[in-house]
Amino acid sequence: MRFSREVRLRRHPRGKVEPADFRVVEVPVRDPRRGEVLVRNTFTSVDPAIRLRLAKTGQSGYFPPFALDAALDGIMTVGEVVESRADGFAPGDAVWHALGWRDYAVVEAGAPALNGLGTLTRLDTALAPPQAFLGPLGGMGLTAYAGLFLVADLRPGDVVWVSAAAGATGCLAAQFAKLRGNRVIGSAGSGEKVAWLLDELGLDAAFDYKRGLVAELLRAAAPDGIDVYFDNVAGHHLEAALGALRRRGRVALCGAVSEYQRSAPAHGPGNLFQAVANDLTLRGFRGSSYVDHMAEMQREVGRWLGDGRLRYRETIVDGLERAPEALMSMLGGGTIGKTLVRIA
Amino acid sequence: MRFSREVRLRRHPRGKVEPADFRVVEVPVRDPRRGEVLVRNTFTSVDPAIRLRLAKTGQSGYFPPFALDAALDGIMTVGEVVESRADGFAPGDAVWHALGWRDYAVVEAGAPALNGLGTLTRLDTALAPPQAFLGPLGGMGLTAYAGLFLVADLRPGDVVWVSAAAGATGCLAAQFAKLRGNRVIGSAGSGEKVAWLLDELGLDAAFDYKRGLVAELLRAAAPDGIDVYFDNVAGHHLEAALGALRRRGRVALCGAVSEYQRSAPAHGPGNLFQAVANDLTLRGFRGSSYVDHMAEMQREVGRWLGDGRLRYRETIVDGLERAPEALMSMLGGGTIGKTLVRIA
Repeated sequence: MRFSREVRLRRHPRGKVEPADFRVVEVPVRDPRRGEVLVRNTFTSVDPAIRLRLAKTGQSGYFPPFALDAALDGIMTVGEVVESRADGFAPGDAVWHALGWRDYAVVEAGAPALNGLGTLTRLDTALAPPQAFLGPLGGMGLTAYAGLFLVADLRPGDVVWVSAAAGATGCLAAQFAKLRGNRVIGSAGSGEKVAWLLDELGLDAAFDYKRGLVAELLRAAAPDGIDVYFDNVAGHHLEAALGALRRRGRVALCGAVSEYQRSAPAHGPGNLFQAVANDLTLRGFRGSSYVDHMAEMQREVGRWLGDGRLRYRETIVDGLERAPEALMSMLGGGTIGKTLVRIA
Repeated sequence: MRFSREVRLRRHPRGKVEPADFRVVEVPVRDPRRGEVLVRNTFTSVDPAIRLRLAKTGQSGYFPPFALDAALDGIMTVGEVVESRADGFAPGDAVWHALGWRDYAVVEAGAPALNGLGTLTRLDTALAPPQAFLGPLGGMGLTAYAGLFLVADLRPGDVVWVSAAAGATGCLAAQFAKLRGNRVIGSAGSGEKVAWLLDELGLDAAFDYKRGLVAELLRAAAPDGIDVYFDNVAGHHLEAALGALRRRGRVALCGAVSEYQRSAPAHGPGNLFQAVANDLTLRGFRGSSYVDHMAEMQREVGRWLGDGRLRYRETIVDGLERAPEALMSMLGGGTIGKTLVRIA
């Protein structure tokens, strides 16, 4: 008999996530049935959207909240097929699926998860190691790619600002824009992150948003304004962008990490009239809504990775039991690049 | 020697507009020079955007604030050519231009005003009386037309909510959507207005936003949600829309009349994350940005007017000196349809 640890939600966090909100439970693993595979998970994802799903009541239209005292269904994970009773999958295959934060998962082939993003899929490890499919070659890559090219409709000459630019999605969006030849400003929450944006990613300008008023720091970095804002933060960052966007500017509303840990109502931008004055477009989106573009994204991003033109960085936390700690660290701004938990 | 009265701004209003913020001055009218015409103004426009331009500091990117102690340049007006020294214009012609809130104006032919919207233009009075060109056949018509069809990209089957639906632009947007076969909900600020929306304009549902919480009133009128929101109000109305919009819903951000008289910072929507969760698009716009579509709009709207399928209503205040009073009444919700001042 095989056993699997899984992280469960004990109680809904109030404000900041705490270790005591979770518990790790060991459960027996059942054999896969016809059409299913058994996967030994190797890396599981830690991303800001998980925070939203820890709340008691969900955001209307968004992925539903996690159930209490149950495995957390709907978290992207990579692993190796141990046993297969599904066509097209064999032991040893590297795969992704959405049953993360546990050692083993029994996954039904073809069953859609996370709006199709998390459907069991074999990974082309000739392109990159499996965990890269939780970063640039997976949901993060798709989110950055779709947000920049399809949602914000990036054009030659656009000046682009990416917030949380040292984060998993932000660092990709910022580099994608650079690779297309745009001028890119990044912001992040520490001097170390800013140095990485400038020295390693080669952004044109970067600032630490904690060192002053965001609107003023942005103005110093982009005195003539911006055309595209890739928003991972919301709140005062979005307000600063609205004040800096030029005529017919565009915002890709991707996330609102400044708001996820607040217990008070979110801070709505007080200067939304700027959108009227300057013919601005704000478009919210989820990467999973663009899952049809995954193969196209993987081709282009795979090429950039192969050429060594795209950098990515992972913050790896070892041990499944430390997944909540990894989440807390990421939400507190303590990680750079994609945050992963190595399970085995 | 001819004299002309003109309304001038004496001081910047704080909060609500007051009569003492203005004064009426009589000035001599100079003869038109080569390339100019002299117009006797007959009707001048009163619209919410004027309130924004009475502020001391303008909205970045928007029309600049009015100068103190000078004629208010940049207000749409219709009148009759009295004397012409410009090709293509003859005495007796009905025209529009942007030098309103005065008895007479000397207008340079071809000089652009209000982003091209207010350039001196001869009116086809076979289509409708001149003052209709300050309403459905002019900037208001263009704003409703562009907002609905170009900005919000109205599609068959969309459920549409129009706020300030008894206002000059709102009543057109609501009817345009009805004429295209959509289900339309209107909101306004009095029982009389709501009755007009239902009984005269034939909207599918309407509510008085003062009779409860906007979000709840909207939910009762559109229990299955909405696809398009035509926003003239901002604030809590926009928040209600964000909560009701279905996947891939769209907002045309046209105006923010709930905010124009506030001295406190505007109320930003606290639930903007709904845009991320539901792939919503919010697009701000100004009618004048779509001035290239004016002829197309006039053809279509002119046909609807000619067929008697489009209703419009004017609130006419008599006497130039009462223009400030008309503005105050409109901003306070006391007028229905297009608010005009009859000068002569």
